[in-house]
Amino acid sequence: MYDLIIKNAKIPQGDETVMTNILVLEEKIAGFVDSTHGAQAKEVIDAEGHLVFPGFMDSHTHIMYHGFGHRENWVTGSAAAVRGGISTIIDMPCCTVPSTRTVKQLELKIDIANAQTVVDYGLWGGVTGEDVREGWMHNVQEQADFGVVAFKVYMTPSVPTYPRVTDPEMLECFKEVAKTGLPIGIHAENFAMCDFYVKKFQADGRMDGPAWSEARNELAEKVAIELGISFAEATGARLHIVHMSTGIGAKLIGEAKKRGINATSESCPHYLTLNYQDAMTKHGACAKIAPPIRTSGDNEEHWEGLRNGSIDFMATDHAPYELESEKTSEGTTIWNAFPGIPGTETMAPIIISEGLNKGRLSLSRTVEVLATNAAKHYGLYPKKGAMMVGSDADFAIVDLSKEWTIDPKTQASMCGYTPLEGMKLKGRIIKTIIRGTLVFDDAQEGVLPTLTDAELDKIVHNFP
Amino acid sequence: MYDLIIKNAKIPQGDETVMTNILVLEEKIAGFVDSTHGAQAKEVIDAEGHLVFPGFMDSHTHIMYHGFGHRENWVTGSAAAVRGGISTIIDMPCCTVPSTRTVKQLELKIDIANAQTVVDYGLWGGVTGEDVREGWMHNVQEQADFGVVAFKVYMTPSVPTYPRVTDPEMLECFKEVAKTGLPIGIHAENFAMCDFYVKKFQADGRMDGPAWSEARNELAEKVAIELGISFAEATGARLHIVHMSTGIGAKLIGEAKKRGINATSESCPHYLTLNYQDAMTKHGACAKIAPPIRTSGDNEEHWEGLRNGSIDFMATDHAPYELESEKTSEGTTIWNAFPGIPGTETMAPIIISEGLNKGRLSLSRTVEVLATNAAKHYGLYPKKGAMMVGSDADFAIVDLSKEWTIDPKTQASMCGYTPLEGMKLKGRIIKTIIRGTLVFDDAQEGVLPTLTDAELDKIVHNFP
Amino acid sequence: MYDLIIKNAKIPQGDETVMTNILVLEEKIAGFVDSTHGAQAKEVIDAEGHLVFPGFMDSHTHIMYHGFGHRENWVTGSAAAVRGGISTIIDMPCCTVPSTRTVKQLELKIDIANAQTVVDYGLWGGVTGEDVREGWMHNVQEQADFGVVAFKVYMTPSVPTYPRVTDPEMLECFKEVAKTGLPIGIHAENFAMCDFYVKKFQADGRMDGPAWSEARNELAEKVAIELGISFAEATGARLHIVHMSTGIGAKLIGEAKKRGINATSESCPHYLTLNYQDAMTKHGACAKIAPPIRTSGDNEEHWEGLRNGSIDFMATDHAPYELESEKTSEGTTIWNAFPGIPGTETMAPIIISEGLNKGRLSLSRTVEVLATNAAKHYGLYPKKGAMMVGSDADFAIVDLSKEWTIDPKTQASMCGYTPLEGMKLKGRIIKTIIRGTLVFDDAQEGVLPTLTDAELDKIVHNFP
Amino acid sequence: MYDLIIKNAKIPQGDETVMTNILVLEEKIAGFVDSTHGAQAKEVIDAEGHLVFPGFMDSHTHIMYHGFGHRENWVTGSAAAVRGGISTIIDMPCCTVPSTRTVKQLELKIDIANAQTVVDYGLWGGVTGEDVREGWMHNVQEQADFGVVAFKVYMTPSVPTYPRVTDPEMLECFKEVAKTGLPIGIHAENFAMCDFYVKKFQADGRMDGPAWSEARNELAEKVAIELGISFAEATGARLHIVHMSTGIGAKLIGEAKKRGINATSESCPHYLTLNYQDAMTKHGACAKIAPPIRTSGDNEEHWEGLRNGSIDFMATDHAPYELESEKTSEGTTIWNAFPGIPGTETMAPIIISEGLNKGRLSLSRTVEVLATNAAKHYGLYPKKGAMMVGSDADFAIVDLSKEWTIDPKTQASMCGYTPLEGMKLKGRIIKTIIRGTLVFDDAQEGVLPTLTDAELDKIVHNFP
Ligand SMILES: [Zn+2]
Ligand SMILES: [Zn+2]
Ligand SMILES: [Zn+2]
Ligand SMILES: [Zn+2]
Ligand SMILES: [Zn+2]
Ligand SMILES: [Zn+2]
Ligand SMILES: [Zn+2]
Ligand SMILES: [Zn+2]
Repeated sequence: MYDLIIKNAKIPQGDETVMTNILVLEEKIAGFVDSTHGAQAKEVIDAEGHLVFPGFMDSHTHIMYHGFGHRENWVTGSAAAVRGGISTIIDMPCCTVPSTRTVKQLELKIDIANAQTVVDYGLWGGVTGEDVREGWMHNVQEQADFGVVAFKVYMTPSVPTYPRVTDPEMLECFKEVAKTGLPIGIHAENFAMCDFYVKKFQADGRMDGPAWSEARNELAEKVAIELGISFAEATGARLHIVHMSTGIGAKLIGEAKKRGINATSESCPHYLTLNYQDAMTKHGACAKIAPPIRTSGDNEEHWEGLRNGSIDFMATDHAPYELESEKTSEGTTIWNAFPGIPGTETMAPIIISEGLNKGRLSLSRTVEVLATNAAKHYGLYPKKGAMMVGSDADFAIVDLSKEWTIDPKTQASMCGYTPLEGMKLKGRIIKTIIRGTLVFDDAQEGVLPTLTDAELDKIVHNFP
Repeated sequence: MYDLIIKNAKIPQGDETVMTNILVLEEKIAGFVDSTHGAQAKEVIDAEGHLVFPGFMDSHTHIMYHGFGHRENWVTGSAAAVRGGISTIIDMPCCTVPSTRTVKQLELKIDIANAQTVVDYGLWGGVTGEDVREGWMHNVQEQADFGVVAFKVYMTPSVPTYPRVTDPEMLECFKEVAKTGLPIGIHAENFAMCDFYVKKFQADGRMDGPAWSEARNELAEKVAIELGISFAEATGARLHIVHMSTGIGAKLIGEAKKRGINATSESCPHYLTLNYQDAMTKHGACAKIAPPIRTSGDNEEHWEGLRNGSIDFMATDHAPYELESEKTSEGTTIWNAFPGIPGTETMAPIIISEGLNKGRLSLSRTVEVLATNAAKHYGLYPKKGAMMVGSDADFAIVDLSKEWTIDPKTQASMCGYTPLEGMKLKGRIIKTIIRGTLVFDDAQEGVLPTLTDAELDKIVHNFP
Repeated sequence: MYDLIIKNAKIPQGDETVMTNILVLEEKIAGFVDSTHGAQAKEVIDAEGHLVFPGFMDSHTHIMYHGFGHRENWVTGSAAAVRGGISTIIDMPCCTVPSTRTVKQLELKIDIANAQTVVDYGLWGGVTGEDVREGWMHNVQEQADFGVVAFKVYMTPSVPTYPRVTDPEMLECFKEVAKTGLPIGIHAENFAMCDFYVKKFQADGRMDGPAWSEARNELAEKVAIELGISFAEATGARLHIVHMSTGIGAKLIGEAKKRGINATSESCPHYLTLNYQDAMTKHGACAKIAPPIRTSGDNEEHWEGLRNGSIDFMATDHAPYELESEKTSEGTTIWNAFPGIPGTETMAPIIISEGLNKGRLSLSRTVEVLATNAAKHYGLYPKKGAMMVGSDADFAIVDLSKEWTIDPKTQASMCGYTPLEGMKLKGRIIKTIIRGTLVFDDAQEGVLPTLTDAELDKIVHNFP
Repeated sequence: MYDLIIKNAKIPQGDETVMTNILVLEEKIAGFVDSTHGAQAKEVIDAEGHLVFPGFMDSHTHIMYHGFGHRENWVTGSAAAVRGGISTIIDMPCCTVPSTRTVKQLELKIDIANAQTVVDYGLWGGVTGEDVREGWMHNVQEQADFGVVAFKVYMTPSVPTYPRVTDPEMLECFKEVAKTGLPIGIHAENFAMCDFYVKKFQADGRMDGPAWSEARNELAEKVAIELGISFAEATGARLHIVHMSTGIGAKLIGEAKKRGINATSESCPHYLTLNYQDAMTKHGACAKIAPPIRTSGDNEEHWEGLRNGSIDFMATDHAPYELESEKTSEGTTIWNAFPGIPGTETMAPIIISEGLNKGRLSLSRTVEVLATNAAKHYGLYPKKGAMMVGSDADFAIVDLSKEWTIDPKTQASMCGYTPLEGMKLKGRIIKTIIRGTLVFDDAQEGVLPTLTDAELDKIVHNFP
């Protein structure tokens, strides 16, 4: 007696697909069979011949619980994730007060997350210039021992609770993280350049949206990535460029890989689809993120990077804010609005619509950039990111033909805005299953409310 | 009711392995289940936790039926293959009288093969200088339409029945094969150089084994590969270097790939393990092949090529001869002995022992070079070379720990010699299954004799 | 008392020019002085502020004396050279009966040349497949000891008296010439390809001029150069590509240089200025050379090659034929017409007009490609190719502004045709001086007839 | 009547030498003649067959006049230069109070220099973070118009009077200097890294000499050069790396050149000859410079860089200090001692002894790195750095065989120390001539005291 059978599942095998039935027992994939004749299960979900992917992974989210009560929390954030076919997120350490850079903070974060999340999650560890200066570097190994999957470093600060590093402090972080064998993800923008040109543009009286992208320019990211590559080469650390925004960045990471340097990168949906001139003009603060949106040329270079492997996988940098208080209130300008946009709900649909369906990405590459590669990179594979016998029974069922339009009013995120608003897509998540439990069903506009307490309990408490 | 269940199968999934049970129905893989509880099957094979690979592919064999009665035929050759875990061979067009370069010859070849073979097979098409000169190039498209998977061209002849091409004739062949979209595999040795130095060494009185390798030198292969790359670039043909022997060759093909040229290559077991000074001295004519065995440095460069992808997959160039008549009879010298050695029985064991078990190749790369890549290259994937629901139920079950020694006396090939004699390996094929039928069982020293006529009938007649 | 003072000479110094007066004593440059006040000389030539270059070098000529009586001889050929500002030629070994591949033939050639030449000269040595086959390779070192400056090898034969090499014979030539330390210049066209496509085009009935260029195609040169590079790498020989015609050739030689291989190349004026479609249509046999004229794209790539150093210097392949007997007589077709055109008279004017005056080449690069580099390459520097105290007093005085039109009727060559006919140039040789003797004066339409016997005697007999 | 004839001068012509006599009139080279017969001159210097080079150039000196009275001034500094065969220095803008970043300061500097210098000189302009912040960037073009040859920027400050730039300030400087077409020379060390590790080493209690080199580590220079290259690429500025110390720097600049970026670099004698472990241990503060002395490996990579062109020329960073007050006084440590060593007196002897005489550099390359290339780079060629008719009559006469030992007690610099002390050299400057006036004669232990006022007057006041 299986717990679940997913019937008529078309599953990816390389660039091919195969029609099969997926057996689930005790939260794991128990098998694939061409016929369910004779097999019994407590529950049957009929995929009706749609593509069934391994559950997607968003390895870069900012759930902003304690200290930021009016922002995205684990309830709204995880609901948004599963609506996007995401079965695992990996959350950043920066958006709490205090930030999550010790075992004590990690324990506190897990307590809060476990009580609220409907999506499985892993955690980023943190290390800052303050840790270097104060002699707190022992926290690095302790966080690693506790189970974080990577460490985040900010060259340019995004939130006041998480101090940036100077160049030598970053080098010290690389040395320390290298010992753990875990990746070190850097927010790669040259601080002094960002600071200087933002102030210069402010002094010049620029108040338009595009000013944000022009002030935090491509060169600031380029030289930051070059510095990261040199530090990775010098220390042996596993450099990862989080939310890389520029095409030149993809080129640099691709070249570094060829030279044998352990360097990886991620793109985000907005860096594949939006150009700053249009998006910042139209959406202003609601399209404000850091690094900023770039040009159409960068969009194309990122698609190319996804194809040729210089970009390893997708993530979202999901960081939505309360629209009224932080984006549109009286006195809010492009300079003081908080940078951040939602992402989890639309990442996979965009890759499927604009990548797979338009022929930019092959099927196997689609699986890699949405699921497999991040899972491998963060040590969660093949429990996550794989569709093997024994893997967690996490799935995203996708209707490749369904056309729809992005509308923030129908999203689960608390924020109510997205610069992708109005984008027409072809391909939609119709069901998300985590460890054998259906957590999102498009037909029912979400299924969480319908789950029993026991069912809900089964899909939380799962810090990998 | 399944036809077959393979229980306790440890199957490769990327670089991981997963323990499962494989269901087989009507010659195809019908499913993978973690428990066979409730599943019924006519036959059960217990893999006992051993690694179960997709059946291996040897895409370069010379079965020498009509016209060469005293050589390897489809009975002995296919028996040797399955003993090596090989479930599919792709046979070359050159070793018949006349050679196989027309639909008529292909039909004749299939008739003979089908009556004798126990291994599945595909066929190489053929094109020669004679076809160019005589205006027979229409045969190329006709062979493609008939179903050959690639075309073979000889820059230097190996058998009298299959004329070589001059440089412009080769260019004409590239142009014609390019139209079919199929690969063109070249025996890459500069004819004039081989001919000149062999005659020079003969004139100098050299009669030692190493003279063969020194006469047909590395440079003759290098410049032939360079010519092939230029022709591929000029015509768009899919260049494939069969039985590539040199490390410099791997380097050239790797560079051509980077420049976007459609170029691939294969190595053979003897180019990974033997150096000519030792092997040609010890085995003389019994180690004589073309291209010849090279140096230990080339061995290492080929392992590196398998790792970095400049070598795409393994094949054997399996071409054994009757020992008495063609290798050791009175008057036979290193110059007039026929070039050729057996290979199918030992290719996979060598890759597993010297590659996988010694850490030279990862598990995923082992699967690629023994099965997946050749199947993809020749258009047989995912029917062959894959372990998916719906793929042919072809498997090689391998005991990774079993130690043994290569001994031609226990091989199925008719030849009775191998320059690998005495090589100690760790890792042995214990069962081979083709389309759900056990065709080799190490414990029973082969199972063919025990198959019923109906069973035997099921595994022949399978020109894909 | 100096023998000669050249007053008001503007001389190149790097990319600058300096106005000076040049002192000549005993055939050498004795000094440069800013004022001739007090200096006495037997003769004074006033350069009137024109540019005075070191005498130019044409290192690739075919003077066709004994055995080819009705062709260019040393009288007409050397007169043509000095009219082009050339003070030294290096003559090829192929156009005599028998060809010049022994000391005996060299001695004979010098006897004839010395009696006729007005230009200084060096000699190419020769080596052919016949020398390899017949065991005559000792001739190589003997020619080197006698004083040849390089060795010529034909991959594809141009004249019946000078056999081509097969690939291994060429390798043997490389090995032997490598020992001498001298360059080995190859006529780089794949023989079998040239032969095959010429015959194919003939069989197809093509009789138009462009057919010649299309039959002896770019690829035949490309693969020949690749072979030469591989042989140079294998043997350490100093590979030189004579009369390189293709842009891809320049690219290959440039890359080989970067990889540290000792490889050089020369272009000719017709490869910089003519495209085959126009020139072969208009001039037919009178534009027929081997390798043939290529495309406008190749023209541009050769200018780029001259700039970036992948082409080392210019030469002419000067090989004119009697118009009536070998280009236009009854029954002459594009296939059986003799390949060859004149060049010495127009090489420098074309480089000056189309290169220097049009900004394609800098002044320093102009000096290098017309004089310095060839002199260095063939070991004649700084005696030749330099304008130093102590160098031979060889000069070409050039009027950069003078406009004129190429007209074979006014040329010294015996041939009376040139595919450059009608080309308008800006920049003309106005005086040529060899070892202090004025041998050409544009104002006097040549000065040779006016020289005394003693003067003439002084400028012959100068095998360097 | 010439002013001067230098008889029996062996002059370099490419890699050859030619024996000649040099005529000088009105401070310029008036000619070269093989015989002085009949030529008259007011003065004759017999070079006795020694090599006569164009006067050498040191394009990186720190003469420390007003504000630093007890340091090297123009009298001692220029005397030291001419003893080293140097006829032109280009002086840095940083070592005055206030520093030289305006036309007013330039005028003041010239007044002081002209009254004291015996060597010809050019001037670096200056631009700092302060100029960016205070809105003084108009000074850049004004300095260019006044005649400076380049602009100096400090990423890490060396003297309190000359503020460093932050990264964006440096970018602003690149943009501004790009408009002038002049080079921008950067002191390439990452400030934060130098500062951090110096403080860390101090905190760790390191007081040994090598600590200085280990604290200001290779990586700080590497990432600074990478930043400079990115800024040069972004702005089109002519990047020059002054006093480059690392081998990796040479590699980076070489690669940037190949990518078409306008980047150049200079090495200094101490980066070619000293390793920090030995030199800093032995000499301590007296070997303290910034960037610091590196390893023997870096020495070798710099010789290679000089050969392959990734290093364009030599300079000295000549900056000597009063030994008692700034290097050895009570309380002076490796951390607070002033960084700086002398250089002008030994640069050319070291290149000649260790480069030319030991076969590391060819003769032509020796001339380029000591004279020609810097003159071209700073726009002073062919007035300086050339030995042409019309060039300034600046010469260094060198006895290639003379053996001697570096001894600070016999040097003209005021400092009395050098970390090169005791180094044995072969090759010595025996005479230096500037614009036709003998300013140093080794036989007379300097000739300045013997010059008349009129003669002295002639060789000062020569801001080019
Ligand atoms: Zn960030
Ligand atoms: Zn983020
Ligand atoms: Zn073969
Ligand atoms: Zn074969
Ligand atoms: Zn030729
Ligand atoms: Zn020729
Ligand atoms: Zn400095
Ligand atoms: Zn300095």
